[in-house]
Amino acid sequence: MPVLGWLPAYRKEMLVSDLVAAFIVTIMLIPQSLAYAMLAGLPPQVGLYASILPLVLYAVFGTSRTLSVGPVAVVALMTAAALGSQFEAGSAEYVGGAIVLAVMSGLMLVLMGVFRLGFLANFLSHPVVSGFITASGLVIAASQLGQLTGVPISGHNLLQLGADLFRELGNIHLPTLAIGGGALLFLVAARKFLKPALIRLGLGERTADMLTKAAPILAVVVTTLITWALGLDQAGVRVVGEVPGGLPGLVMPAMELSLWQQLAMSALLISVVGFVESVSVGQTLAAKRRQRIDPDQELIGLGAANLGAGFAGGMPVTGGFSRSVVNFDAGAQTPAAGAFTAIGIAVATLALTPAIAMLPVATLAATIIVAVSTLVDFPALIRTWRYSRADFMAMLVTIVLTLSYSVEAGIVAGVGLSVWLFLYRTSRPHSALLGRVPGTEHFRNVLRHQVETRPELALLRVDESLYFANARFLEDRVLDLISSHPELEDVVLVCPAVNLVDASALESLEAINDRLKDGGVRLHLSEVKGPVMDRLKNTGFCRNLSGRIFLSTFEAWAALNPRASDVPG
Amino acid sequence: MPVLGWLPAYRKEMLVSDLVAAFIVTIMLIPQSLAYAMLAGLPPQVGLYASILPLVLYAVFGTSRTLSVGPVAVVALMTAAALGSQFEAGSAEYVGGAIVLAVMSGLMLVLMGVFRLGFLANFLSHPVVSGFITASGLVIAASQLGQLTGVPISGHNLLQLGADLFRELGNIHLPTLAIGGGALLFLVAARKFLKPALIRLGLGERTADMLTKAAPILAVVVTTLITWALGLDQAGVRVVGEVPGGLPGLVMPAMELSLWQQLAMSALLISVVGFVESVSVGQTLAAKRRQRIDPDQELIGLGAANLGAGFAGGMPVTGGFSRSVVNFDAGAQTPAAGAFTAIGIAVATLALTPAIAMLPVATLAATIIVAVSTLVDFPALIRTWRYSRADFMAMLVTIVLTLSYSVEAGIVAGVGLSVWLFLYRTSRPHSALLGRVPGTEHFRNVLRHQVETRPELALLRVDESLYFANARFLEDRVLDLISSHPELEDVVLVCPAVNLVDASALESLEAINDRLKDGGVRLHLSEVKGPVMDRLKNTGFCRNLSGRIFLSTFEAWAALNPRASDVPG
Repeated sequence: MPVLGWLPAYRKEMLVSDLVAAFIVTIMLIPQSLAYAMLAGLPPQVGLYASILPLVLYAVFGTSRTLSVGPVAVVALMTAAALGSQFEAGSAEYVGGAIVLAVMSGLMLVLMGVFRLGFLANFLSHPVVSGFITASGLVIAASQLGQLTGVPISGHNLLQLGADLFRELGNIHLPTLAIGGGALLFLVAARKFLKPALIRLGLGERTADMLTKAAPILAVVVTTLITWALGLDQAGVRVVGEVPGGLPGLVMPAMELSLWQQLAMSALLISVVGFVESVSVGQTLAAKRRQRIDPDQELIGLGAANLGAGFAGGMPVTGGFSRSVVNFDAGAQTPAAGAFTAIGIAVATLALTPAIAMLPVATLAATIIVAVSTLVDFPALIRTWRYSRADFMAMLVTIVLTLSYSVEAGIVAGVGLSVWLFLYRTSRPHSALLGRVPGTEHFRNVLRHQVETRPELALLRVDESLYFANARFLEDRVLDLISSHPELEDVVLVCPAVNLVDASALESLEAINDRLKDGGVRLHLSEVKGPVMDRLKNTGFCRNLSGRIFLSTFEAWAALNPRASDVPG
Repeated sequence: MPVLGWLPAYRKEMLVSDLVAAFIVTIMLIPQSLAYAMLAGLPPQVGLYASILPLVLYAVFGTSRTLSVGPVAVVALMTAAALGSQFEAGSAEYVGGAIVLAVMSGLMLVLMGVFRLGFLANFLSHPVVSGFITASGLVIAASQLGQLTGVPISGHNLLQLGADLFRELGNIHLPTLAIGGGALLFLVAARKFLKPALIRLGLGERTADMLTKAAPILAVVVTTLITWALGLDQAGVRVVGEVPGGLPGLVMPAMELSLWQQLAMSALLISVVGFVESVSVGQTLAAKRRQRIDPDQELIGLGAANLGAGFAGGMPVTGGFSRSVVNFDAGAQTPAAGAFTAIGIAVATLALTPAIAMLPVATLAATIIVAVSTLVDFPALIRTWRYSRADFMAMLVTIVLTLSYSVEAGIVAGVGLSVWLFLYRTSRPHSALLGRVPGTEHFRNVLRHQVETRPELALLRVDESLYFANARFLEDRVLDLISSHPELEDVVLVCPAVNLVDASALESLEAINDRLKDGGVRLHLSEVKGPVMDRLKNTGFCRNLSGRIFLSTFEAWAALNPRASDVPG
């Protein structure tokens, strides 16, 4: 239990730091929680519910000192995509589906943690994750344009959203646009100018930064007051409306097998994507203070948080980047800051729900658009293109499918393609025929260097571990060699780069040995690594090998030389 | 066109050799073709139809000089499994399904050949193929026990077949068992004793071998005569019955999209498994004469053969092991032997169909059981277990699923598991902290050797290419290192075994650099390979690297030493 690592040593100074951080994060979280619930297609209070119990559970089970969990943009979008294709927006089934998603994803994360399957997240390659987050940011921003302009648009990709928006261009609701556009301009300006301005006014850099982060709550308060004062809700500006007050009770998820089956794949993707995001944030922050997080225990922490979110009637949660950075910068020392934030949100849920009835939905849309604008990273595309075409391909496919089809298709295709490209790369390893650098014991590629060769001897170096995907490649390479060099009598496989020979490659070596033997050619090995040799030595391959195993390639060159006078010394 | 490689140079001596080989193979193929059609659940003449046109087309498009294509046991079983779950046995839809399977598998093979996708077959690891063939052999033998004993059993795995057989134990038809059991005993005895006996009688080894291979046709002739003479068909012994005489006309496959979709996955598996079997046989035989086959052209050859099989009303075909070996041993020199075999089968189809009406089905079952007994290879299980537990796991899963569930599930699970195990293996690479062997410039694993270390310097060697699946592993390893060694000032990654750094690993290196920098530790590299360095040098990683890139580890050790007097010389 990670909580036992810090709670017994908890001191008063920590309490002060944690309380300050919790206060700042609470201010930031209130509009964010409402907004991300709306992004997921859920009633706004669901976002608050998902920001109370999960934080307490993560404080008990999580290993990061400063990670702040709760609803985040990408996971909210994935929730919307998963539920939107199955249920009617706003229906009770839709809300129930979000609860099942949270509970299932919590169970999956806990199980992955218990079985130490955290490494599964490694199969999301960085370019795929980066492309996925950029594309998700664009889809999220596009999905909010409807709320910002007061027209109904729907869909989970740019094509659907763009078509809807284009059709509704004539119906833009000007009062809504004024509120939403105003909030957007204010938030963008605050991000750009507020911090320098506050510093010029004499505030410390950290205070200025914190106040800048509070800009969304200011936008919420101001637009709510304007809407209330001018009665804009009567003029057609959509507001959050009455939400049930009080804290959430314990909710049981629907226990229908078919529903769980329908949502299982989505829950898995949400779990893995959420875990990757959370662990990246957690590791970045932990390293700054020379702390460590344990990825397998993080699975359990995040799993507990999601179970808590589900049973509190919330939605899937994970560790968010911006909120965790705020928590860290505000000086949070222990996970207790998360628990105090939970208390802050609980108080807000009790006290503020009447106040947010007149909060314009367009303001929330503006906060989402500004928040996700930091997710979009086009330069990463160019960097990846420059560095590796294969990685770029996987990234591009992820982006194109996420934008044009769905987030789930994008991430699945990206993972599949990157695994495939890796296997493809290792299935065609680099290999070279070697010759002797005259007068030395060095052997180099005949295509690149001026080297001595002998027509009856081939020295073939393979620069990859030998396993099933390249075993046949090796057979082809050697058999091509002997059919194109009829004068060959000896083939030496030079193996310094072979870290592994699996059972398929072993059989290929046996087949190569047999076929060379049939053709009157002997097979030898040289420079076999110790651990590989340990395994090979008790096999039939070594017993039946027509040639020998040489420690060095030079030894092979000398021993296989019909005219010993060629050998120096 | 491979045919242009040998036809213009065709000589009379070749003609004689090819004719002899074709005659022997024809004798062997007649019962085999009938039997494998029956195994696939198809009327016996379908096996003959699939042994005419495909052979001619392979002779034109294939690259092996001696491969003999036609119906083979494993592909027949896969055909039965694919069709049996969709159509009623013996119905016109079932026969039509076999034609669609052959045409679709032909198209897939040709397309794979055109796009040079022959390497796809590499993903069937040897243990998976070996396990699959052993398990298929067992399922095939079990499926024939019903025909051998005259009771109706059905199913495509040992559980179903065993249950049926157990239920029908009381209904065994003794005359059928006498015919089938007699044929089985004769064939087993012929295999064991006939060849030595013939050699003792003064025949040459090759002639004796050929005559032994003709034993099945003898069993067919004798049991047909007995059945006809004693009127056993009236006594309930199942016979082949009237089959349509004459050569097959051109058949158009059913052009229903839904049917093609249903069968697509099965056709793909049949194509890949057939291709792997065929290429292994072809390569083995070609190497004996120092010839080569071209796997991508082989795809086109096999594809053409399957298209021919489909349009002639046959079933999926591939290059078979036993028939190809017979063809090779009988002295076939060119693919013309295959074309002559096709003529032989065509003549047989015209002349013999009335004669096989009284052929007992139990005799065909006996020939199948004896033929597939060579597929079962239990020692391979033990060899694989001894050599590699991971490969054994993949093999065992393939066998268990093939036996207990279905051939398709077996092969798919085996491929998935072997890819997974490979990725898993490379995702947790071996790594070691190094120390200096005193008085030398060598650096070795601190756990295995008596070496010098310094508390403020860590030398970490990673023995694997760095890519997405192990990028996070590397981050964890380094961050664990700095959190457990608070006195560290410098970390050197020693990279002689790193053949590739993909974009994910590059980002991980950047993250490691940033996090170490935050923690006041510098990151260095040493022994980076040339091609890896070429890519790294223009990246932000190199520009922002907090430390240096050293050519050798010793250089790093010397340069990072606070007390220069430690350095020798």
